[in-house]
Amino acid sequence: MPTADEMRAALRRYLACVASNDVDGVLELFTDDVSVEDPVGGPPGTHVVGREAVDRFFRKGFERSRPSPRPTGPIRTTSGNEAAMPFVLRLELAGQLQEIDVIDVVRFDDEGRIRSLRAFWHFEDARPLAKGEG
Amino acid sequence: MPTADEMRAALRRYLACVASNDVDGVLELFTDDVSVEDPVGGPPGTHVVGREAVDRFFRKGFERSRPSPRPTGPIRTTSGNEAAMPFVLRLELAGQLQEIDVIDVVRFDDEGRIRSLRAFWHFEDARPLAKGEG
Repeated sequence: MPTADEMRAALRRYLACVASNDVDGVLELFTDDVSVEDPVGGPPGTHVVGREAVDRFFRKGFERSRPSPRPTGPIRTTSGNEAAMPFVLRLELAGQLQEIDVIDVVRFDDEGRIRSLRAFWHFEDARPLAKGEG
Repeated sequence: MPTADEMRAALRRYLACVASNDVDGVLELFTDDVSVEDPVGGPPGTHVVGREAVDRFFRKGFERSRPSPRPTGPIRTTSGNEAAMPFVLRLELAGQLQEIDVIDVVRFDDEGRIRSLRAFWHFEDARPLAKGEG
């Protein structure tokens, strides 16, 4: 079981990799059988399982939307192998810079690699940024 | 499947019931077979299932710690039947007023009642409040 500090470090590293749109860095944090739901309850293609599918998913997402995350509160660790992290994601959607409030809920394996990542957010909650806000 | 607005309303009502230490109000939001993990990965007795056990769990918790929650960001809904909510909980622990950062992750049934509530927080992250802060 990873410690609270190990879970926090992995999640900070994950956000840093997203910030630099670094797919390889993200993949290093994941198990081979990782499951990613982004968003939870999303349309077909938003729940991907296994390193290859997840690699394609992140590569396409980073290329398309150039995401940039900003933490909005402390990472909540647990005495189990799960943690939750709140942040705001700035990204390009439909040619427009937007922001979405996200909470990632993550489950780790015994070595502290991410086995499951579930991103809680809703398409309806994306907020277009006015010019100058970017 | 509940709508995003229905999930948000239920979670706001849940926080209001916790704020007034209203066990009956909390229970009205839950299904009969509700599962509560508070905290996730906690010691024996912190994962309770079914209305009776959950009633006892909340009654004892409210009596003992007099919790008072304060939202710290928007509720993240999804297109599925799940949502996540960040807040700070002020409570009495070991005779001392403390604060803990929490994220509740909740799953609803088709009628919008809460079937599963998982509270992400860690005992180590409780912060004693200095006198005067209360």
